[in-house]
Amino acid sequence: MSKRVFNFSAGPAVLPLPVLQEAQRAVVDLPGAGMSILEISHRSKPMEAILSEAKALLTELLGIPAGYSILFLQGGSSLQFSMIPMNLLRGREVPADYVVTGTWSTKALQEAQREGKVNIAWDGKSHNYSRLPAADELKFSPEASYVHCTSNETIHGVEFPEEPETGSIPLVCDVSSNFLSRPMEVDRYGLIYGCAQKNAGIAGVTVVIIRNDLLERTPKGLPAMLDFKLQAANDSLYNTPPVFAIYVFLLIARWLKNDIGGLAKMARANREKAKLLYDVLDEHPEFYRGHAQPESRSMMNVTWRMPSEELEQAFLKQAQARGLVDLKGHRSVGGIRASIYNAMPREGVTQLRDLMLEFAHQHTAKA
Amino acid sequence: MSKRVFNFSAGPAVLPLPVLQEAQRAVVDLPGAGMSILEISHRSKPMEAILSEAKALLTELLGIPAGYSILFLQGGSSLQFSMIPMNLLRGREVPADYVVTGTWSTKALQEAQREGKVNIAWDGKSHNYSRLPAADELKFSPEASYVHCTSNETIHGVEFPEEPETGSIPLVCDVSSNFLSRPMEVDRYGLIYGCAQKNAGIAGVTVVIIRNDLLERTPKGLPAMLDFKLQAANDSLYNTPPVFAIYVFLLIARWLKNDIGGLAKMARANREKAKLLYDVLDEHPEFYRGHAQPESRSMMNVTWRMPSEELEQAFLKQAQARGLVDLKGHRSVGGIRASIYNAMPREGVTQLRDLMLEFAHQHTAKA
Repeated sequence: MSKRVFNFSAGPAVLPLPVLQEAQRAVVDLPGAGMSILEISHRSKPMEAILSEAKALLTELLGIPAGYSILFLQGGSSLQFSMIPMNLLRGREVPADYVVTGTWSTKALQEAQREGKVNIAWDGKSHNYSRLPAADELKFSPEASYVHCTSNETIHGVEFPEEPETGSIPLVCDVSSNFLSRPMEVDRYGLIYGCAQKNAGIAGVTVVIIRNDLLERTPKGLPAMLDFKLQAANDSLYNTPPVFAIYVFLLIARWLKNDIGGLAKMARANREKAKLLYDVLDEHPEFYRGHAQPESRSMMNVTWRMPSEELEQAFLKQAQARGLVDLKGHRSVGGIRASIYNAMPREGVTQLRDLMLEFAHQHTAKA
Repeated sequence: MSKRVFNFSAGPAVLPLPVLQEAQRAVVDLPGAGMSILEISHRSKPMEAILSEAKALLTELLGIPAGYSILFLQGGSSLQFSMIPMNLLRGREVPADYVVTGTWSTKALQEAQREGKVNIAWDGKSHNYSRLPAADELKFSPEASYVHCTSNETIHGVEFPEEPETGSIPLVCDVSSNFLSRPMEVDRYGLIYGCAQKNAGIAGVTVVIIRNDLLERTPKGLPAMLDFKLQAANDSLYNTPPVFAIYVFLLIARWLKNDIGGLAKMARANREKAKLLYDVLDEHPEFYRGHAQPESRSMMNVTWRMPSEELEQAFLKQAQARGLVDLKGHRSVGGIRASIYNAMPREGVTQLRDLMLEFAHQHTAKA
């Protein structure tokens, strides 16, 4: 077995080793099934048990109240960018409001614009999405069809400490990159959606939590696969769902409950990990320039620039040599991005912090 | 490890044991990556290599000529039922022709009817889809936008020995349940699509092989995820693809090439397995009544009724006791269905054949 690296990729991303080991066993022999998890029918008893436990654990972890449905869908959050306005906006007079805080909410906005009337409630483009809006900056429409926001932007590294208050307007939130990283007050939301490949498992499944009254909005005649109401009525089994991705989601949910002890404890560990890195940015502002404004900093994706691109290259090379990989920032921000999701061990973050301190010392002394 | 059963499920279905074992290793440690196949970025070098080898092997196995694109998409064939008419039919005056040979082509037809003009070229409903059309029964439109057919119907157990000839009209074929079970003359088709969970891997990825001129039909303004042209331009990486499902597809392609020796050999083995069961039907017509007419029989799904439902239940129970599982027919046909895809070992089929002979002998003697 090759040495396990610390994987700082923005997603698909690091997973907990015990989850990988449990998944590994099931890939040849799902206990009690006489076959692999990859071979079971989606209509089989083992799959019924997997779906049912996955929903029960998610309900418990997030404290989902009665009156919500949980769906496991394909196509990533990118397909949700279209499905949401198809189901909740098409044919309605009042616009949907979009809060645009980075690359992902921009993509969500662009897909919604194909489907109906859209109002931009705020857009942080002018400062390259380095901060989130204050409550009094948001220009909501009266009685909007819904308000859409993105809880965490992986590329820019900004995260809402708490999403905006929308009163009786349904709040729709893309939680793809901080899902299950902290508790949520689910009853504040009309719809929550997140792809699994950051904190909740592997690429290929997207979790949608929708308040049941919103299922009644689905217009007639949508393609079956894109129809929330139909998917809910079929309990995510309208067609063959991504069985293995749902199974890994279940293993993650078990890990969060049994190994971590719930989302409040997970959130505390995540804040402590993030602080290790943000403290370096704050203590060496001449060398490490954080992209996100302090009050909008993400606990999941820490982004910063260095004095020159040459130094950034040298830093990435030294990191790679120590087994700290996939730290290159996205081209639209540049520099370094450390994605430190739930499953990133504190040890990996500590090693990165140490490298940052050494590197700054080395290159500041020389300058 | 529990005893491995013979899994006759219609899909998700049995996979080759060497493929499961190779996938299992990679679930903790993808060789050379320092991480799991479940953790690699879709923009990483290992993923580039996986995608590139998967396409090269598929091209080799099927003999795909120049001028076609291979896409790996999410949403199953059910989403293709909508994507195909969205891309190839929307806004066109001339209808698409649908050849309706069972449950799956009916579903494809229903989704197409939402998107544009559709003509039913043939429908086998009156005899519960027990046979396929002869060439002179097909009523094609002049210059149809395309002709759609389903190469194999899993529920009814009928399979085209060869799909209809459509001349210059693009032939669109759902090969979900016999993909890679036999050679194809790809240049006869405009578009071939198949979900992976029967012969080509696991649920969560669908392979689309599209002739490049058809990419030009995509109308402007489709949701990004449903746009063939955009997906092709991004080489299936517009968003995060289902990495693990694509990896398993690659392992299946390697197995077909290296362990089996190509699709002609695979087809021969499949015909031999199917013959073991059809011979029993032919030799005991008073006891086993095949659903499919002999000339339309599927090499993948063998379907039959028995003299009474009580005998069918008793048969299923005896089969289960011998480790021959998931043999219950779909409710729309009833009786027994044996799905004997590529990865079903001949030994499993032999054991089923033996049970059929014993069971008929036992219950015919008594009667």
